Amino acid sequence: MSRTWVDEIKFDAQGLVPAVIQDAVSKEVLMVAYMNREALLKTLRTGKAHFYSRSRRRIWLKGETSGHFQRVRGVALDCDGDTLLLKVTQTGGACHAGYRSCFYRRLDAERDWKVVGRKLFDPDKVYRGLTPKGQTPSGSRR
Amino acid sequence: MSRTWVDEIKFDAQGLVPAVIQDAVSKEVLMVAYMNREALLKTLRTGKAHFYSRSRRRIWLKGETSGHFQRVRGVALDCDGDTLLLKVTQTGGACHAGYRSCFYRRLDAERDWKVVGRKLFDPDKVYRGLTPKGQTPSGSRR
Repeated sequence: MSRTWVDEIKFDAQGLVPAVIQDAVSKEVLMVAYMNREALLKTLRTGKAHFYSRSRRRIWLKGETSGHFQRVRGVALDCDGDTLLLKVTQTGGACHAGYRSCFYRRLDAERDWKVVGRKLFDPDKVYRGLTPKGQTPSGSRR
Repeated sequence: MSRTWVDEIKFDAQGLVPAVIQDAVSKEVLMVAYMNREALLKTLRTGKAHFYSRSRRRIWLKGETSGHFQRVRGVALDCDGDTLLLKVTQTGGACHAGYRSCFYRRLDAERDWKVVGRKLFDPDKVYRGLTPKGQTPSGSRR
């Protein structure tokens, strides 16, 4: 069989590759999560971002609980072939803590993490009683 | 000793954290590389991005060979504390293959990686005879 586009991607020893998720319009970096081959293929087939959860050890559809899906507009690969960049249209907020972007804390001049993001939703309401097994609303390792 | 801002960062088993590098003005995602604690502290002390090379097993100053430094404008941390986002002013190109961004290939409708980036410099000229030991100009694992 000849080499295909998937073979250009260097998945790590765990079969994963990090994916940077960027808002296609505002260009804000929303999050970084991990994909295995299956998550990537599902993403392309459905047009909605799927990732592999390292803590839950399964594929998840981003937005499956919150409804905050990511419609994929483009997929780029870096020079080393070991990182993906996805441009998406984000529904609601990407962050399970209620922010548009997971990168809502910025190091300030006093060397402290300062919240600079604006809260879009109340995670207690969005995830109440719906938190997938093994995931804590206060932040599990994705 | 009390908890400091560094303790909020969850370095992995190898002591590393991925850092997404974004152009502070154009918001283009330029690259993803890894930092250990020392690389991050050097970055903050000097204002220039330093990373940890997994293949060369040492700290490197981005631009040490090419002169294509990254002046850091801001550092953000994600909700899980396991990924950094740095906004930078990039001199020249971030990619050792000669492009502004390492994500210069995009998956097209025919499921093929198509070069969409514009080449800014000739890597053979910039890195000729100056390639650090263990690094190949055609792309080593960072």
